Amino acid sequence: MEKVRLGIIGMGNMGTGHLRSIMKGECPRIEVTALADTDPEKLKKAGQSFGAAALFDTPEALMDSGLVDAVLIAVPHYDHPRIAIEAFSRGLHVMTEKPAGVFTRQVREMNEAAANSDVKFAIMFNQRADPIYAKAREIVSSGGLGETKRLVWIVTNWYRTQAYYDSGSWRATWNGEGGGVLLNQAPHNLDLWQWIFGMPKTIRAFCSVGKYHNIGVEDDVTIYGEYDNGATAVFISTTGEAPGTNRLEISGTKGKLVLEEGKLRFWKLKEDERMTCFNCKDGFVWPETDYEEFSAESPDGHPILLNNFADAILDGKELIAPGEEGINSLSISNAAYLSSWTGSSVDIPVDEESFEQHLTELCRSERREKKTVTVNETAEALSERWKVRW
Amino acid sequence: MEKVRLGIIGMGNMGTGHLRSIMKGECPRIEVTALADTDPEKLKKAGQSFGAAALFDTPEALMDSGLVDAVLIAVPHYDHPRIAIEAFSRGLHVMTEKPAGVFTRQVREMNEAAANSDVKFAIMFNQRADPIYAKAREIVSSGGLGETKRLVWIVTNWYRTQAYYDSGSWRATWNGEGGGVLLNQAPHNLDLWQWIFGMPKTIRAFCSVGKYHNIGVEDDVTIYGEYDNGATAVFISTTGEAPGTNRLEISGTKGKLVLEEGKLRFWKLKEDERMTCFNCKDGFVWPETDYEEFSAESPDGHPILLNNFADAILDGKELIAPGEEGINSLSISNAAYLSSWTGSSVDIPVDEESFEQHLTELCRSERREKKTVTVNETAEALSERWKVRW
Repeated sequence: MEKVRLGIIGMGNMGTGHLRSIMKGECPRIEVTALADTDPEKLKKAGQSFGAAALFDTPEALMDSGLVDAVLIAVPHYDHPRIAIEAFSRGLHVMTEKPAGVFTRQVREMNEAAANSDVKFAIMFNQRADPIYAKAREIVSSGGLGETKRLVWIVTNWYRTQAYYDSGSWRATWNGEGGGVLLNQAPHNLDLWQWIFGMPKTIRAFCSVGKYHNIGVEDDVTIYGEYDNGATAVFISTTGEAPGTNRLEISGTKGKLVLEEGKLRFWKLKEDERMTCFNCKDGFVWPETDYEEFSAESPDGHPILLNNFADAILDGKELIAPGEEGINSLSISNAAYLSSWTGSSVDIPVDEESFEQHLTELCRSERREKKTVTVNETAEALSERWKVRW
Repeated sequence: MEKVRLGIIGMGNMGTGHLRSIMKGECPRIEVTALADTDPEKLKKAGQSFGAAALFDTPEALMDSGLVDAVLIAVPHYDHPRIAIEAFSRGLHVMTEKPAGVFTRQVREMNEAAANSDVKFAIMFNQRADPIYAKAREIVSSGGLGETKRLVWIVTNWYRTQAYYDSGSWRATWNGEGGGVLLNQAPHNLDLWQWIFGMPKTIRAFCSVGKYHNIGVEDDVTIYGEYDNGATAVFISTTGEAPGTNRLEISGTKGKLVLEEGKLRFWKLKEDERMTCFNCKDGFVWPETDYEEFSAESPDGHPILLNNFADAILDGKELIAPGEEGINSLSISNAAYLSSWTGSSVDIPVDEESFEQHLTELCRSERREKKTVTVNETAEALSERWKVRW
């Protein structure tokens, strides 16, 4: 096999965005052979702009066609696990859009199905391709910060207008997306948080519903997390602030990292702070540090992750974002929701039954509206939108 | 009256520090005429180094001597309100060290006594003299940020070693100080928080006791606050991190301020974000801003506040830090303690009875140790220690 024969399921913004990127030649080892959407209108439009692929009106028909080795799942969040499981059962490789799903129970089932299959499973956490985040991960995981102490991430530059929310009746609804900023914009950051700093054990979160927009889900969130080793994390995100901030600070016993404005700054202590604390005879000291700085352009991570997916299939290369890891960011957001709904601290793994009960009730009581606003947007804006923004 | 005749009560670090500063001629309108300490050793030592003042072994004897117009209270936190009330009843002006006290009930009584007197009452929030913070306050209070949205303050550069905590048996104990970083180091920042951004209505806090030091009080704290208008605040402080951070971010509907590294940066939106959100037809926009920057050296605020106190007494000048405002930062820290002790959100004003019960029980069960470590420190270090540090 020289090229991966890819079927794209879902011809919405993300699916057509990936299609365009592949059509432009950004993924030389991928050939799009099939497209699927349950909406005939969308499917027709996609077929018109890309005649080389076969068109299917269900994911199953696409998967059963024999035309694809792999599928890219770009449908509403709720359906990711179900379709991925169908693909695994047919021996097809899977790249799913983020988030992994909405319910961790379904995502666990998806992960089990992946484990029992012999195919590659990846998730579109394109921001992992950013060299600055990768460098932070390398420093933390190699012990460059010593024992971790604290993560503080202010990522409030996901600004969205009311027109954005009015542009699709599924947007920012419990029934359509299963949540707001935590499930749509922040999953990238929640993933990077756990990728770089590991998984918290307990979450206390404060989610504000419709604080800045006329929507029924959260558009502002503050999360406090605690770790087994005593480290803590604070994560702040919103779609209602401009100009926003993207500043990630991580500290440990051997120093501190600050990622901001496209730069990683690294203060490295000459002596582990725990030694200074207990050996120093002075009460007030300012421990000495070395200083290093890294900067790099933020690339478009989408084709990087698609190419990595193809390399994994064709050459057995390691995945940048294994699909199984999608459950981690989802567990943090689910814990944050449950904490906010119950007004109390929530342990991870989350009580799935309690989460499902709460969310199901929110879906049941949600008022459905038909939205007809069309937002101005260019065809090329999509990659830009999901790039790391400093 | 050409000069204020000042009596300094308490010859510990702060009291002798202020005495030295006045002796050096930094406060031309203040004459120190009396010193008091209940510890004969400390009183003798102070008298030896400054022969011009009368010495008293109780605050009351000093206040009854007829030698002073005003007192500077620099005794352990618990005793601030009691001594201030004694001073007010004698018609003496009062400058108290921070925090205002430990129990808000006593601080309320102190404030009532001040209100019923005809004297000046000030509190040593020397960091209010920093031009950068004053500028932030000016911008926020004049509406430069529009409606406030969020405050995030990472102030983790209060680093202290174990030797610091071992240098006095009162240090970092419930009986001696009534708390840890929240009552000793952070009151300056809690005061600036409320001075610039106003008082939160609800607090949820997470205080870690002895996380980085062998102490029985908190040395690491994360506070989440909510405001009547929906704004939120996150405040993070510790004495266990190096190199620490001092970064204050404040956002509102008209822009954003970031105070860091001795600079205030101000992004001012060309259009109020609330207008953009609801009028813009684009879903994804990056609202335009003007940018301004301010920087200034951080002065030694202690003599500035002492001179302001003298000017208030002699010329009726407005106080930089009216003593009555000390209850605000204390209310935030008390709410943070109570929230952490009860594991729940706490409203301000704090339930004083519940707070007192918890703290009294902590004091009762605290193991008392005699500490004998002497830390290396220079006589001039004190002002430096309490300056704004970026």
